[in-house]
Amino acid sequence: MSPSKITVFAPGLIGGSVALACSHFFPQAKLAIWTRRPESLPRIRTALPKAEVGTDPGLARSSDLVVLATPPTALPDLVRSILPHLSPSSMVTDVSSVKESVEENIAPLLKDKARWIGSHPMAGSEDSGLSAARAGLFQNAPVILTPTASTSAATLKDATSFWIALGARVISMSPQIHDDQVARISHLPHFLAAALVLAAGKGPLPLAGPGYRDTTRVAAGPARLWAEILLQNRRGVLSAIREFRSATDNLFAALENGDAQSLEKILDEAAGIRRTLPPLS
Amino acid sequence: MSPSKITVFAPGLIGGSVALACSHFFPQAKLAIWTRRPESLPRIRTALPKAEVGTDPGLARSSDLVVLATPPTALPDLVRSILPHLSPSSMVTDVSSVKESVEENIAPLLKDKARWIGSHPMAGSEDSGLSAARAGLFQNAPVILTPTASTSAATLKDATSFWIALGARVISMSPQIHDDQVARISHLPHFLAAALVLAAGKGPLPLAGPGYRDTTRVAAGPARLWAEILLQNRRGVLSAIREFRSATDNLFAALENGDAQSLEKILDEAAGIRRTLPPLS
Repeated sequence: MSPSKITVFAPGLIGGSVALACSHFFPQAKLAIWTRRPESLPRIRTALPKAEVGTDPGLARSSDLVVLATPPTALPDLVRSILPHLSPSSMVTDVSSVKESVEENIAPLLKDKARWIGSHPMAGSEDSGLSAARAGLFQNAPVILTPTASTSAATLKDATSFWIALGARVISMSPQIHDDQVARISHLPHFLAAALVLAAGKGPLPLAGPGYRDTTRVAAGPARLWAEILLQNRRGVLSAIREFRSATDNLFAALENGDAQSLEKILDEAAGIRRTLPPLS
Repeated sequence: MSPSKITVFAPGLIGGSVALACSHFFPQAKLAIWTRRPESLPRIRTALPKAEVGTDPGLARSSDLVVLATPPTALPDLVRSILPHLSPSSMVTDVSSVKESVEENIAPLLKDKARWIGSHPMAGSEDSGLSAARAGLFQNAPVILTPTASTSAATLKDATSFWIALGARVISMSPQIHDDQVARISHLPHFLAAALVLAAGKGPLPLAGPGYRDTTRVAAGPARLWAEILLQNRRGVLSAIREFRSATDNLFAALENGDAQSLEKILDEAAGIRRTLPPLS
């Protein structure tokens, strides 16, 4: 896909990085940036001097690609506000890290009005906001597309080539499978990092080495956003936590019983799985 | 302290890094390296060409500093084997990440035979062995010294200046407080990273972003060493796990009840604590 106009709604860390990457990888395309907050306009203009910037949803007019980067709970109202400005050939995607509820809320609104497909770029950091955004954020990052029975092959193909152009590794799966898998690989780690910070407390922080730092890094992320993500994927996260608890029960028992052999066997199994993860190139 | 001879026992990741750092920061000092395994001698000679290398504990003779870098369970036998070669002015330290049991086992053996103090350099990585060792490993790393009532002020001062010379930030506390604090900041994170890898499973690994990678990095570490560390600090680790469980119970309840306000409050408290940790310089 070679879009002639791209509109990005809500340029925070992810949306802002999409905008910067579009301006880098699609230099011929017109770029429009919408923000809810008038006070953000000057900063956006400084970061993206060539883009058309404003607070009017009509900015989306004649876009062949619209990227919605608000938190998931804000999506339905946002989509309603841009509906009049979309054409059936416009492709609309989001960047939410939950997909089943977004699909349920958004797909019906956009049916026959635009070409909708959910996206979840698994990039980002504990930082947030446009100041943390960068054009290279998606290099080698996994981006999950969540087509459903109503998604056309052309839409899936266009969304795939868009994210590949931004440097991503694209994977497709259903919204349900996405939510289950992401609960394990992203939401559960966040949940545990927060619990670990609270359990460790402030006392030993001067001793923190790279282990504690890495293990807890994500816990510094924005609390409101993460509360929303966890709640939106509540079913998946609760089920992942239950699996986590049974994994800790086995480890806890081996430790409590002083069973060196079982403890080493369990740790070795974990090390074996972790080592199959190829290093980021 | 400006040692004229330093002997390092067991040059794995930490011991090897101590040896490399000593050869860099104390270029005038004689350096001796002991290994249990004759097959390791050629590799050690290649990595540390100026050092005297061998399998004879007598290498420690006339050392003013002896650094013991074996796993903690191997320490008592090792110390017995080097006792005849120590003088009361020799300073002996270790690098174990558990301190109460090491203190109980080692201090009585060295009483009146050498100047003993426990050290715990909180550096390292999921890699192990001499091939991962580097002279800069202790730059800005916390090193905890664990003096007791029997430690002289001169010994504490000499051990402090030794680790500072290697680039470390030195902190002192009793072996008991060390074990409690390190259980929270190092052993609990390892335990949880392993459980998280097992709970997440292999299925979603292609989706792993930086969050999963960082949160689980330490789980790839050597299983036997970690089983030993957790068992040696069993009391401290079990108590830290119990605190962790109560932290997760609160988070789990907020999530299960769909209580956005409590969930955000708990996550925000965790983010606040994590953000007080200054970035590594």
